[in-house]
Amino acid sequence: MRIKALTAALALGLSGVASADEGMWQPHQLPELEDILKAKGLEIDAKSISKLTEFPMNAVISLGGCTASFVSPKGLVVTNHHCAYGSIQYNSTTDNNILENGFLAKTPSEDLPAAPGSRVYVTEEVTDVTAKVKKATETLAGKARYEAIDANRKALVAECEEDKGYRCNVYTFHGGLEYYLIKSLEIKDVRLAYTPAMGVGKYGGDIDNWMWPRHTGDFAFYRAYVGKDGKPAEFSKDNVPFESNSFLSVSAKGVQEGDFVMVTGYPGRTNRYRVSPEVDYVFNTAYPLARKHNSKYVELIEENAPEGSQERIAYESTIAGYNNYIKNYGSMIESFKKGSMYSRKQQFEQDLQAWINSDSDRKAKYGEVLADLEALVAESQKHNQRDRMLGYVHRSQMISTARMLYRLAVEKQKPDAERESGYQERDLPRIEARLKSMSRRYAEPVDKAILLHFLELYAALPANERLVEVDNALDLSNGFDKTKHAAMLDDMYANSKLADEKARLWMLDLDLAQLDQSNDPFVKYAKAIFSVMKSIEDQDKELTGKMQAARPALMEAIIAYNKSLNKPVYADANSTLRVTYGTVSGYSPQDGLVATPFTSLEGLLAKNTDVEPFNSPKKQNDLIKQKQYGDYTGGMNTVPVNFLSNVDTTGGNSGSPTLNGKAELVGLLFDGVYESIIGDWDYDANLNRSIHVDSRYMLWVMDKVDNAQNLLEEMKIVK
Amino acid sequence: MRIKALTAALALGLSGVASADEGMWQPHQLPELEDILKAKGLEIDAKSISKLTEFPMNAVISLGGCTASFVSPKGLVVTNHHCAYGSIQYNSTTDNNILENGFLAKTPSEDLPAAPGSRVYVTEEVTDVTAKVKKATETLAGKARYEAIDANRKALVAECEEDKGYRCNVYTFHGGLEYYLIKSLEIKDVRLAYTPAMGVGKYGGDIDNWMWPRHTGDFAFYRAYVGKDGKPAEFSKDNVPFESNSFLSVSAKGVQEGDFVMVTGYPGRTNRYRVSPEVDYVFNTAYPLARKHNSKYVELIEENAPEGSQERIAYESTIAGYNNYIKNYGSMIESFKKGSMYSRKQQFEQDLQAWINSDSDRKAKYGEVLADLEALVAESQKHNQRDRMLGYVHRSQMISTARMLYRLAVEKQKPDAERESGYQERDLPRIEARLKSMSRRYAEPVDKAILLHFLELYAALPANERLVEVDNALDLSNGFDKTKHAAMLDDMYANSKLADEKARLWMLDLDLAQLDQSNDPFVKYAKAIFSVMKSIEDQDKELTGKMQAARPALMEAIIAYNKSLNKPVYADANSTLRVTYGTVSGYSPQDGLVATPFTSLEGLLAKNTDVEPFNSPKKQNDLIKQKQYGDYTGGMNTVPVNFLSNVDTTGGNSGSPTLNGKAELVGLLFDGVYESIIGDWDYDANLNRSIHVDSRYMLWVMDKVDNAQNLLEEMKIVK
Repeated sequence: MRIKALTAALALGLSGVASADEGMWQPHQLPELEDILKAKGLEIDAKSISKLTEFPMNAVISLGGCTASFVSPKGLVVTNHHCAYGSIQYNSTTDNNILENGFLAKTPSEDLPAAPGSRVYVTEEVTDVTAKVKKATETLAGKARYEAIDANRKALVAECEEDKGYRCNVYTFHGGLEYYLIKSLEIKDVRLAYTPAMGVGKYGGDIDNWMWPRHTGDFAFYRAYVGKDGKPAEFSKDNVPFESNSFLSVSAKGVQEGDFVMVTGYPGRTNRYRVSPEVDYVFNTAYPLARKHNSKYVELIEENAPEGSQERIAYESTIAGYNNYIKNYGSMIESFKKGSMYSRKQQFEQDLQAWINSDSDRKAKYGEVLADLEALVAESQKHNQRDRMLGYVHRSQMISTARMLYRLAVEKQKPDAERESGYQERDLPRIEARLKSMSRRYAEPVDKAILLHFLELYAALPANERLVEVDNALDLSNGFDKTKHAAMLDDMYANSKLADEKARLWMLDLDLAQLDQSNDPFVKYAKAIFSVMKSIEDQDKELTGKMQAARPALMEAIIAYNKSLNKPVYADANSTLRVTYGTVSGYSPQDGLVATPFTSLEGLLAKNTDVEPFNSPKKQNDLIKQKQYGDYTGGMNTVPVNFLSNVDTTGGNSGSPTLNGKAELVGLLFDGVYESIIGDWDYDANLNRSIHVDSRYMLWVMDKVDNAQNLLEEMKIVK
Repeated sequence: MRIKALTAALALGLSGVASADEGMWQPHQLPELEDILKAKGLEIDAKSISKLTEFPMNAVISLGGCTASFVSPKGLVVTNHHCAYGSIQYNSTTDNNILENGFLAKTPSEDLPAAPGSRVYVTEEVTDVTAKVKKATETLAGKARYEAIDANRKALVAECEEDKGYRCNVYTFHGGLEYYLIKSLEIKDVRLAYTPAMGVGKYGGDIDNWMWPRHTGDFAFYRAYVGKDGKPAEFSKDNVPFESNSFLSVSAKGVQEGDFVMVTGYPGRTNRYRVSPEVDYVFNTAYPLARKHNSKYVELIEENAPEGSQERIAYESTIAGYNNYIKNYGSMIESFKKGSMYSRKQQFEQDLQAWINSDSDRKAKYGEVLADLEALVAESQKHNQRDRMLGYVHRSQMISTARMLYRLAVEKQKPDAERESGYQERDLPRIEARLKSMSRRYAEPVDKAILLHFLELYAALPANERLVEVDNALDLSNGFDKTKHAAMLDDMYANSKLADEKARLWMLDLDLAQLDQSNDPFVKYAKAIFSVMKSIEDQDKELTGKMQAARPALMEAIIAYNKSLNKPVYADANSTLRVTYGTVSGYSPQDGLVATPFTSLEGLLAKNTDVEPFNSPKKQNDLIKQKQYGDYTGGMNTVPVNFLSNVDTTGGNSGSPTLNGKAELVGLLFDGVYESIIGDWDYDANLNRSIHVDSRYMLWVMDKVDNAQNLLEEMKIVK
């Protein structure tokens, strides 16, 4: 499955430009693409897609990390099974294992609460705030610049969020060349309405993850609730289903090979404009090491949480997440070695520099932008070993929880507007949700074993790459001693209260003076390293401030260069609403092999072994054997299960509605093929393919397998 | 690569019949298929293919386990690289590593001797000897019947081989329903004329083995030599190249998708007529266990022969062979689970029985044939655990060599005609070759470790499944003790002379009385278990004698049944010359994937990593980058490397010429796709695909990469 998007990314760099069906376009850019869109098969007005408050864009929503869409007038939301996985798991018990067996609320009153912190965000306004964000910052440098920009952004957010029930964010485009304020309705009462069984929703599991052929029914349904006044409200029995301004109709006819499709959603992060030294470092150092350490991480979980144990259940989604990254990095490393991205990137930089140098004005303005950024990139990589190993040490849930609580107490001493992002009043509900969810995702033996392992690796760093404060706090000054440090950790875990939810929530309300007196070993650790970590953070901010000047300068040059070549430029993905378009099409993953664009029920059955993850429900198998296709073939000889298209997507797009030329929902985007994973860095028209659940399969499962007629009736099905 | 065929097999059973392009036809059957062949694209007269002494059949030869063909008037023979592997390895030294780098004799005088025992067999006569073989046997039963048939066969062989320079064999068809005497010219002086580098000939290695897409240049050239009188002779400098009656011309134009192709060769063994209890046992017990034990076998070799060591070199081809079997069994087990072979087999048996029972004459004649055979099958499986584990114990090269020498001494006491097959005068050269080749394929630590492991497994059998004589000889009566038995083996190996080639050859000439006094621990073991093993052999002969009556009866019924359905029947493969035909065509290995029928030079290059087995020679890579295709595209935009067709082949077919409708060589068969491995038991028209080296690629490598113009000039190339 696609990795859920991180929070808004500062992801920029250096690349070629949109060709083929490459491009994650901001809605306001679509009218300039109208000719292309019409030629490809768009039937509705391109302008209508550019307006966020009109159909179809107002039906497309963010779950924070995934995309979803309204599909009924009564707040019914469809997204991927893997996007609702946490909520399904949250409601699953040994007695009522809905993760395994699926769940259907026969009426909205049976809807189950989603996992704590679940949200539905409806983008309502996008405002260019570049001038406001940069105001009085141009003369500043380094940390001062970073902080001024940060303060301006926070002020804009705070002002915007005075409108209760909204969540606002300032997003960075082109590395800081532009800033947009995005105001979204924040629906806080989200419930699970329906999910198919795991043997449908996660059919193929980690084995088929990122792969084609694929036969996964990666869909699930939420319902959004608001107060009786129609405004967002915390969970309450009295809340009512949210009535969105519009919703998508769902096609029972589906698409055919060659058909136009577009995907609207919230892609998280791409790196298509990164400079070549960044590419070199990431593919030759960062990804190979991340793959290695993450593999060990999973190994340690599996060793310390035996299969079938309660501990293992707690870590299932962590394991799945790590495995997803491991496969992801593996593919990218493989594609990078096979492909020519790096040399093309270098060539592009040469061409760009030559173009800049060929005009004296340009040379004066942009002559150094590339060199400047590359120098900053080199500086940012200086302590990568230390940052990497310390990062793994601090992934311990005990440490990260203690550090979060301690930091919060520090920040709370300041007025809200001056607090660090993530620790403002607006962030408290999320912090609380995180403290609660830890109860379901933590096991001491696992956390301890992982911490012990990475302490050993951290301790093996050269002394000048270690931090004295960390060494002192964890008794590492004389090196790592497995027996001694295992005993030390036993002691720390035994004497900490952080594994207890109530204790965590109680600490949430302590002030700094109180925390400073805490005897909790992990809180003491957080305190001991606070200053040194803060000074590293300050150095990072200094560097970020410099980059906030350097990247936009380079992007300005790139945009100007592309304009000279008559090529439109899209910004790297940054978790904001985008539109990408393309056609339903297969591809050749290798010489001698062709991936055809559709899979079928028969192919699903052929994969079935009755052993997870290939454990299709018996009822589904029987229906397939009986060829009970219903009206869901769209003219094919079967019900298509998944399909391929060349739309340009990434993590965060998961759950996005796939629309036909009439903006009817014909599928849900849920993954990309193995060869397309490197697409986050480099779109290859021959290999970049997204994988969609076919709407025909989704409707067929709902109708024939799960008897979800109640939902089908409230939806608008196009037959 | 296809597994080399075993010696002539007694492989029969129960199946459906030829449909689609299924069928390994005896040449004499081809005229009855003429209409089909012509419709498919055969341009020459079908009758001409039925005559063994005419073109093209007289150009198709056996290497004993592989197929080859004459491609010049001067005895030049083309076969697969993996069929010539032993000879290439035999001539390879650290200083002159022709396995790695390839080899080309610029003139025949530079040809290198093939590995000891290498032979070229040219089939000259096929005679139906059913009546002679069965003469005076019909009234006998069990062992007596077996021995009478054996004696008749030996007499026919001996009579036939009075013609010096010929090798004769009586082959069993349809489980003993028919017998054919096949008389082949035996060319004993075989030399290596040319092989490409391993990075061409074994490109993709074990990873790509049995797989598509494929990019392997699996070809190599021998040259056959005879005495100045034109008759077969042992190796001598004075020998001259053999002038065959005809030879194949080689097409530089190749084939296109949908083209007719036929493959002539010596398929080793298929089991398409086995009864359902045999299928059940093989797929649910024998193959899974063989896979497990063989995997351990490879593991033990790798542990005890470190990579890069002389020992590892000695075992490389053994490892490759075992890995080949492991993958082979894995595929078959997988296909068996997914497919419906077993239920279709059961259905066929039901239908057959119903057809038999529906007529009183038939019922009287065939009513019990199925039940009779099934009873014998059950009996044959009774001691399968013992036979399996003892089999692995006796694979020790020290034990098998000692047992062979001891058995030979026993047999030598009898007149030649009465000796056991394999121990007659005619077999001595092969025995000697085997004693010599052991020097290059043996390492004490490996042999010992394997023997120790399987002794432990043997010792774990229930007492009544063990042999007292084996237990006594190997001190296993009180169970296995790793330390004790390791010491025992150390002692045995230290005191044996069998690791020494000269000692082995010296023992070859000892008589039984002399061997009986030997103090060699392995010879003593051979002596100690001789009687009990002989009695097991006698029991097996008793059973075989019964099967030799039961299987033909069942096959007679099957043939009659199929005749009633107007379906021609081909016999299971048995290492005799067959013809199979079909078309160049891709297939769908899975829902959502299509294997296209050709791979290209570009695909080869894309796989290249410069790391074995994906280490294409730099010169080849450069030529591909420069698109130096020469005249070897056949109208494509590249030089095709390998292609797929639906011809029906199996191990033993390796190296077979793939012919177009004019009987020009357009490729060499060298493998089947993963999904077709189960084809030995069950031909599936949708999944059964053979893999061929494209003649265009072979010629291109010879011309552009290896500068083998001297060979191209003596061949007849069709442009």
